[in-house]
This record gives sequence, C-alpha cells and structure tokens, in this order.
Amino acid sequence: MSDYFPPLRHMQFLLNDVFEAPELWAAMPATQEVGPELVSAILEEGAKITSALIAPLSRIGDEEGARFDNGKVTTPEGFVDAYKKLAEGGWIGLGGNPEFGGQGLPKMLTVLFEEMLYAADSSFTLYPALTSGAALAINAHASESLKKTYLPRLYKGEWAGAMCLTEPHAGTDLGIIKTRAVPKGEGSYAITGTKIFITGGEHDLTKNIIHLVLAKLPDAPEGPKGISLFLVPKIRLDEQGQLAKPNAVVCGAIEHKMGIKASATCVMHFEEAEGYLIGELNQGLACMFTMMNYERLSIGLQGLGCAQRSLHTAMVYAHERLQSRAAKGAVNPDQPADPILVHPDVRRMLLTQRAYTEAGRAFALYTAEALDKAHFHPDDSERGKAADKVALLTPIAKAFLTDKGFDSCVLGQQVLGGHGYIREWGQEQRVRDARIAQIYEGTNGIQALDLARRKIVGSKGKLAESFYEDVEALLERLDSRKEMAEFVQPLKEALQSLRESTADLLAQAQSNPDAAGAASCDYLHLFGHVIYAYLWVRIASVACTRPGSAFYAAQVDMARYYFARLLPMASYHARAVKTGAQPLMAVDSACFEV
Amino acid sequence: MSDYFPPLRHMQFLLNDVFEAPELWAAMPATQEVGPELVSAILEEGAKITSALIAPLSRIGDEEGARFDNGKVTTPEGFVDAYKKLAEGGWIGLGGNPEFGGQGLPKMLTVLFEEMLYAADSSFTLYPALTSGAALAINAHASESLKKTYLPRLYKGEWAGAMCLTEPHAGTDLGIIKTRAVPKGEGSYAITGTKIFITGGEHDLTKNIIHLVLAKLPDAPEGPKGISLFLVPKIRLDEQGQLAKPNAVVCGAIEHKMGIKASATCVMHFEEAEGYLIGELNQGLACMFTMMNYERLSIGLQGLGCAQRSLHTAMVYAHERLQSRAAKGAVNPDQPADPILVHPDVRRMLLTQRAYTEAGRAFALYTAEALDKAHFHPDDSERGKAADKVALLTPIAKAFLTDKGFDSCVLGQQVLGGHGYIREWGQEQRVRDARIAQIYEGTNGIQALDLARRKIVGSKGKLAESFYEDVEALLERLDSRKEMAEFVQPLKEALQSLRESTADLLAQAQSNPDAAGAASCDYLHLFGHVIYAYLWVRIASVACTRPGSAFYAAQVDMARYYFARLLPMASYHARAVKTGAQPLMAVDSACFEV
Repeated sequence: MSDYFPPLRHMQFLLNDVFEAPELWAAMPATQEVGPELVSAILEEGAKITSALIAPLSRIGDEEGARFDNGKVTTPEGFVDAYKKLAEGGWIGLGGNPEFGGQGLPKMLTVLFEEMLYAADSSFTLYPALTSGAALAINAHASESLKKTYLPRLYKGEWAGAMCLTEPHAGTDLGIIKTRAVPKGEGSYAITGTKIFITGGEHDLTKNIIHLVLAKLPDAPEGPKGISLFLVPKIRLDEQGQLAKPNAVVCGAIEHKMGIKASATCVMHFEEAEGYLIGELNQGLACMFTMMNYERLSIGLQGLGCAQRSLHTAMVYAHERLQSRAAKGAVNPDQPADPILVHPDVRRMLLTQRAYTEAGRAFALYTAEALDKAHFHPDDSERGKAADKVALLTPIAKAFLTDKGFDSCVLGQQVLGGHGYIREWGQEQRVRDARIAQIYEGTNGIQALDLARRKIVGSKGKLAESFYEDVEALLERLDSRKEMAEFVQPLKEALQSLRESTADLLAQAQSNPDAAGAASCDYLHLFGHVIYAYLWVRIASVACTRPGSAFYAAQVDMARYYFARLLPMASYHARAVKTGAQPLMAVDSACFEV
Repeated sequence: MSDYFPPLRHMQFLLNDVFEAPELWAAMPATQEVGPELVSAILEEGAKITSALIAPLSRIGDEEGARFDNGKVTTPEGFVDAYKKLAEGGWIGLGGNPEFGGQGLPKMLTVLFEEMLYAADSSFTLYPALTSGAALAINAHASESLKKTYLPRLYKGEWAGAMCLTEPHAGTDLGIIKTRAVPKGEGSYAITGTKIFITGGEHDLTKNIIHLVLAKLPDAPEGPKGISLFLVPKIRLDEQGQLAKPNAVVCGAIEHKMGIKASATCVMHFEEAEGYLIGELNQGLACMFTMMNYERLSIGLQGLGCAQRSLHTAMVYAHERLQSRAAKGAVNPDQPADPILVHPDVRRMLLTQRAYTEAGRAFALYTAEALDKAHFHPDDSERGKAADKVALLTPIAKAFLTDKGFDSCVLGQQVLGGHGYIREWGQEQRVRDARIAQIYEGTNGIQALDLARRKIVGSKGKLAESFYEDVEALLERLDSRKEMAEFVQPLKEALQSLRESTADLLAQAQSNPDAAGAASCDYLHLFGHVIYAYLWVRIASVACTRPGSAFYAAQVDMARYYFARLLPMASYHARAVKTGAQPLMAVDSACFEV
C-alpha cells in the first residue's frame, strides 16, 4: 500500500493559475508544444508511477539498504524492476535535449515530477537524478561525438550517470583534489585516484555507469583553476559504441549512513581508467557549474518532497488520533476523546509544516521559471536577466528548501508523538532521508556563502534587484485591490528589511573579508523568508478571486498564517546580520576548546 | 576507544563557583556531609566510568540493538557486564533514600553524573534511569513493607524498574487507559491489560524487573481521577522476599525505532498479574507526579548530554579538517588548506552549540538546586518556595533542554559535512538518540501546555515570580559592577519582555480557553531564552573576576555571543505569543486537508 498522495491540485493551481506557465510556454518557440493536455497527462501519470510504483519501495529500501559485496552493489528488492519501468516510460529523459532523444520539457513541469519522485523515495530517485545531472553536463560541454554516443542511452535510462568530485581530503575545497589525468593521445586520458561519497557510483540498475570525474593533469595550475572534467565509463565501448570491456573503475566500499540507505554511496577507485575530456582543459569547475544550478534545485526538491509526504501523514494522523478534549469543550462527545487536531499546538505544527512546504513548491516553480527563461527565451536580454535570477535564487532554493524541508519533517514526526519515533509510520525515515539534503551538493553553509559573498557582495547587490523588481511589480498590481490590503504593508516592510540587510552586508564587506561568511546563513534565511512572503501574497491574490471554494479559502488563510507566525523570523535574521562578524571572529580561542 | 570527554572543568566551575553548591549543602543538615572531596571523587570517578566503560558501548549498542526472541530481550554485547559494574560501584542508588541503602546525594551533584551517563550512551542509561524513577515513586508513596522489600535491591541495581503508563490508544491522555485492576484481597490486585512503549519493560540486565503500572479498578471514576498505581514484579517473591515464581507479565514485542536502539521499548501484556497498590486508590496520577519532576529533568539531561558529546566531536573535527582558506588570508600557509575553524559560519555553528549547551548545564543545576531545596531545606517556607520553582522550571527544563539539545546535535552533525551523515563519527547517532527526548516523558508540546496553562495561567502568573526575583536580585548585585554593564540593560529588557508576554498570555486566557495552548510553545521558548540570558550573566559575572585565564575569558565571550546572536530569538517568540490563538484556530478547515 502506498502512503504517498501527490498534491496534484496544489501543483496544478500553482502552475496554471499562479504562475500561468501555459502563457509563458506559448510565448516561447521552444516550448510552444507544451499544451495543457500534455501537462495534465504528465502530472497525472507521474503521480501514478510515483505513488504506485516507487513509494512502496521506500520502506523496503530503508530496511534492506544497498548491499556491497566484493566490488558489486545490489540495490534492494524491487529497485531493478522499478527503474526499468521508469526508464521505459521515458521519465528519465523528461528534460533532456530532444536532439539526442530527450523530451525537452520545461523545468517548471519537471520540478513537479521531481518533487513527486523524491517524496516517493529519495534513495531511489538519486539514481535517475544523477543520471539527468550527468547528461546535463555532457549536453552542455562534451564533444558532438561524446554526446551522440552517451546521451541517448542516458536519456533512455539504459545507462546511468554518476558525479565523482569529492576525495577523502577534499570536499568543499575541490581545488586540492589529487586525482590525476595523464594524456594518452587521441583525446583519451588515464585517470587515477580515489573518490568518496559517490552517489550511485556502482549499482545493478543499468549495464553501464557513466562517471563524470574531476581530475588534474600533471602540469595543471594549482587550485581550482587546474581542474578538468572527464567522462569515464564503467564499461568501455567498442568502435560501434557497444559495450566492450570493463574500464579500470572499481567500487571499494559503500558507506553506512543515517538515511537514504538504498542509495549506494560509494568509494570509487580509478586505476589508470580510460577517460575522455569534457569541455576544455582546466575548465572542469566551470563545466560543473552549468549543471549545478539544476542539481542544486533538484536537491531542494528532495527537502520539499520529504516534507510534503511527512505533512500528509501528520494531517491524517491528527484527524484520526483521539487524545484529550478540546479546550473549548468536547467536539467528539460520543468518543472517549477528541482528535488531536483540536489542540492549538498540534495545529501550529501542521500549519507551519504546510506554510513552508506549499510556499516551497511555489519557490521551486519560481526558480524553475527563471531556469526556463534563461534556457528557452528567444530574447537575449530576457535570457540574460533570467540567468542572473537563476544565479541569485539557486543557493537559496537549495538551502532554504532543504532547511525548511528538514524542519518540517521533524514537525511531522512530532505530531505523531511516540508513533513518529518508531519505524512503522515512516515519519522518522523522512527525517533521516531529508537530513542529507542539507549536506550534499554543497552544504547549506556553502550555499549561504555563495549567496552572500559571490552573488551579493560579488555583484555589489545588483543580482538581488531582479527579486526586488518582482516584489514591487506585485505590490503595484495589488494597489487597487482592497481585499489584499492586509498583505501589502507587511510585504513592503519585509522587502525594505531585505534591502537594508543587503546594504548592511555590502557596507560590512567593504572593510571586513569575514563579513559575508559571518552574515551568510542568516542573510540566506532572511532572503528565503521574504521570498516566501512574496509568494504567499501571489498565491493569496489569485486564491481570493475565487470565492466559494474551501481550497482557495484555505490558501488565503495559509498566507495569513505565514505572515502572522512565520515571517517574523525575518526580523531575527536581519538582526543577526547586523551584529556583523565580531561576535564570531573576535572571541577567545578557548571558546573552541573543549 | 572512547570519544566521550566529560566536561569536568565546566561542571566544577558551575557547581562550586557559579552556584556555590558547597555553601548550600553546608547550610542544610541533610546534606552537610557532602564535602568537596566527596564531590570531586564522584565527578572524577563518574567521568572515568562513563567515558571508559559506557561510552564505548554506544556504537555497538546502536549497531546490534536490543533483540527480541519469544518473550525474551537480549541487550547488546557488553551491556550486562557494564550494568553489573555500574551497580557494584553504587552508582544506581546515588540519589536514593539512605534509609533503604541509597546514598542520598543532592540532585545538584547527581545531575552532572546523569549528564555524563546520557552522553556516554542514552540507550544504556535508560535502564538505570527508569530504575531510579521507579524507586523514587516507591520511596514517596509505597507502604513501608514494599519499600523495605524493593528499594534496597533497586538501589543496588540487583533489580531494575520500569514505568508502564502508555497504552495503544492512550499516550498523552492517560484518563482513557483500559488496564484493569481487580482486588484479590490481602492488598493484592489482579492486573490485566496491554501497555506499549515501555522502556526497559524486559531485558537481561537484572534478575527481576519491578513494573509500576497505571490501572483502573472496575468501579473507578471515569477519567484521570480513576487511575491507581500498582507495583507489579516480573518475578514474584516468596515470604522471605526471595525470587519465587514468574508473574503473569509477558513482553510481546519490542519496537524498531529511529534511535536509542539498545534500549528495549516493549509491548507488555499483563494477564491477571499480581500487583500491589502504591499510595491510595485513584491517586495514581498524583503518585506519578512526585517522580515526574525528577524524570523530566532527567530526560532534559539526555538532550544536554547528547549535545555536549556532539559539540566535542565537532570542535575536534573543526580543528583537524583542512578545507579552503580563511577569508583574511591563509593561517596555515604550509598546508594545502586552513582548518575549517577559520570560517565564520563554522564558528557560528560551534558557538551556537556551545552557548546553548553550557547554559543548559547551568539550567540543569538551577533546576536541581530548587529540587534540593524543596527536598532538603530545613525551613518549611523555603521548601514551599522551592517546590513552586520546581513546578515552574520542570516543563521548561524538559522541553528546552531537549529542543536545544536536538538542534545542537543537528549543528554538530552539520559541522562534519558528509562525514556527519555517515555512521563512522557518531554524529548522526547523536541526532537520532537525542530526538526521542523531545517526544517521551510527555511530548514537548505537553510540557509547553503544562507551563502555559497549568503553571502560569493556573497560578495567575504567580509561579513565574520566583524566577523574576532571581533575575532582579542578580541585576541589583551587578549595579555596582561596571565591567558587567554591557549585560545589565539587555537582561533587564529580556525580563521585561517575559513579564509582558506573561501578562499578555494571562489576559488572552481570560476570554479564550485556547489561548494557553496557542501560545504555549513560543511562551516556553521565550522563557527558556530569558533563563539562559540570566544564567549567562551569572556565569560571566563570576568568570570576569578571574583575569588571566583563557577558560574564564571564553566564558565571558560565550555570554556575549549568546546576547548578540541567540537571545534575539526571544523577541520572535514574544511576538508569536502576541498573535494569540486566532491564526491557529480561526482558519478554514481545508487548511488541514491534504
């Protein structure tokens, strides 16, 4: 039995009514064929396949875990079959380049399907997600011949992909990696080194695994500027592109982890493995950045998906579990107790989970919209503006979606009390599975630094303007709408607070190199809260035009809840930004002794 | 190898210098014999036994878990031996009644040992902790004959205790339990029913397990007023008090949980088991409340202990792990990278962990001091005042210590990045083990409701006065001390904010029965933050009189950090209290549909 129920109505409401995606798609030649029927079909079929095929694997996968034996990795029961069905349905190449067999669908659509996948099972989903990521990098930077050889089979799910970046001594700091690439002539290289934490580095789902490996040539410049990117297949191909003999790529072990246990996290040894350069020499990091915006949003969706599934279970439980009486008197006098939904603190937990999760979905779409415009828009300057917005929003999307996703899973577990701590209901697994999303694909601390130092200080604040403009345009549209008046002033104040914090950060950074790092986490959370305020107002402004429906009334109430109870966190974060680096840097070193 | 290093110096500093416990003990006849040598010996030996004997069991216990087979529970390798040694050392009866073989030591001392125990291994510690809890209830309410029979062997660790409250349909709401007690004459009762989530309900550590069971007589009043408390031994005794034949008490299963896997969480079936009344009929809940203040503080210490151990590992890692360069330029130019401790956001995580954890230790002592005065003080009115303070502080200690303990474990995991997510370093286990402490022994939502509704609204705010008085007395003492001026105004403001929120809550509660519940969680967190502010000022006021030592300088810097970066959360919580119940209660019911 599946306990995952994709929130299709909310997805369609956001996509069609709040973001008016069909209008955008119709206006861009590359997406003109994405009509309402296709969208409905994909969302409905996607909901079916994720809830019926994948969600039931989640518990089994957690119990069995990926197993390692002598270099081979076996995925849990049912994974091979489900992966095959997912591939056959064409789901893996959903966003792929149509020239090589991908379906070329816009990100605004695929984010919704990805959320469903992660909700159904994060462990399982990492295998296709890494495949899509590898395909993205190959599509953007590899030679035509590599593209022709590898992309169609990645999109078809016949082969899988893996990203080999981290080494035992080098995680965040890729500039110090030791893996070496020695030219062998004819465009091939001998790759030697050890990589760790490689998601899907080895498994039994596909006949080949295409590793994208960061390595340095013997004479490469020191640091990040000497890193190149290589394609290293697990099985080498013959001249016809058919599987030939194994490459010198060996899985040495898999990690034992807190969660995502069915995802094989591998130690990979490359022993003069044959690899092919992707992009230009020493441009490896730049090549990675192309896909990183997509991958980071994808990991954000993991946080969102886990939170949504946890929310659903918590809501169901709160309706069914009878315990104590409502403070205002029994609502369930025929039964020995009332449903716990009557208790204000249970409602607080559920509404908080819901407000962050539903705004999170809107945020994923808002980021995807920028990605789509940056990719598909016919106008150069629109593409450029959208790319700037992607640069701004990506670190926030990754970190804020996963931080709030994790917090929501913890709340969803708490609603169930002791039943949330035992394995039976799945709530504790959501917490464990969501936790990794705050860590990998660049820790959330790194996302915050990317935002504060690279994006904000690096652009002298200019990158933030695209968001400010969106808020101002919305405020202007609302000017004449009395029923929205309650939101206008608080949103103005939130925007003002963000502007002031940004100015504050820029001023501090002029004289103190540590300022951006010290402010980073709070600045990101401040920004996230203001984005959610903006999105809740957009949602409410559409919902309140549709009277007589509980669904829309609830959306307006959720916006109110967000403004009353959650947006005030923005003030806390703004205040922390203001304190500057001093409380962190000017303390006695004994503060770090234990 | 042990990776647990008890923070002895900080413990001794708080106990002797900040709280001046020796002066208090000397002033109370019952504790006059607790001299400085005894205290040192207990803390030092306690540190040895917890770090060398128990801490190494933590990982093994997590891997193996408690195992269930046909009614029997086997604890992980090493548990039986360690329990025996702990018992032989007299550690289990540390706080027990000397009349029956306990050591009668004050809580201010035993909380420090308990923190060490939980830090060393929370799973293991639950067995002696439940034993102490059962002994407390027996000592306070059972007949002399039951006391004589059971207490000495509980204190000696020869037998263990378990508390049987929860049933499948009744957790928080004990008024609806179904377990029945039928009088058999001669003071014994036949107990029949099923209890779940029974920590240590069955195990192989001791020859007997003494269950304290809540049950109702057939003719008992409905609801909580019909609950009685019974002592039900696993093995019945003969007339000489020797183990005779098994009672009708059967363990039906154990739970599979997120963490504390070596602690057996049992389903217990009582099938006309022989039980003996403790206290008076229908006074079972009142009997439980006697021990609850101790047990709830004890669970707070679990949060604290896990946080301290996680902090230590995170500190060590931050010194050793080299990654990227300091923003102000390399501090480690001979190496390829600097230790991550140079990065402001890593420092933010460590300082936050530390500021909450060390204030938490002071809070545990502050609560223990009130418990000791309530128990040992020769003056009636002092005992009464202290009991009021215990009533006020207990729910905050349980919930705030465990909420901040969990958050700290999550931060300590984050500092290690990917290495925090794999099992090797133990950081992920701390998160899983700490998580239950927010749930059991009354969820933190129930603690918050106890504080807001029962303690604050119930006393018309009077119970809070004892804390206000302490703060005001401190502020007065600091009036003449210029070096403490920086803390005085912010502490005054924090106290003022708490007073206003309390008044706000009382006003709301007059007209709205849901007000206390709606404010509860935020009110508790506001209170907790103000208590920590008060405690940091006390700590700093002692530390700053001892110049020339990095240890004391760090204490003052930690106080500054707390005021700059963490205390501002109090404003957020105060604002949430102000919003009232409306945002939670007056929303469309569709907000709870998914």
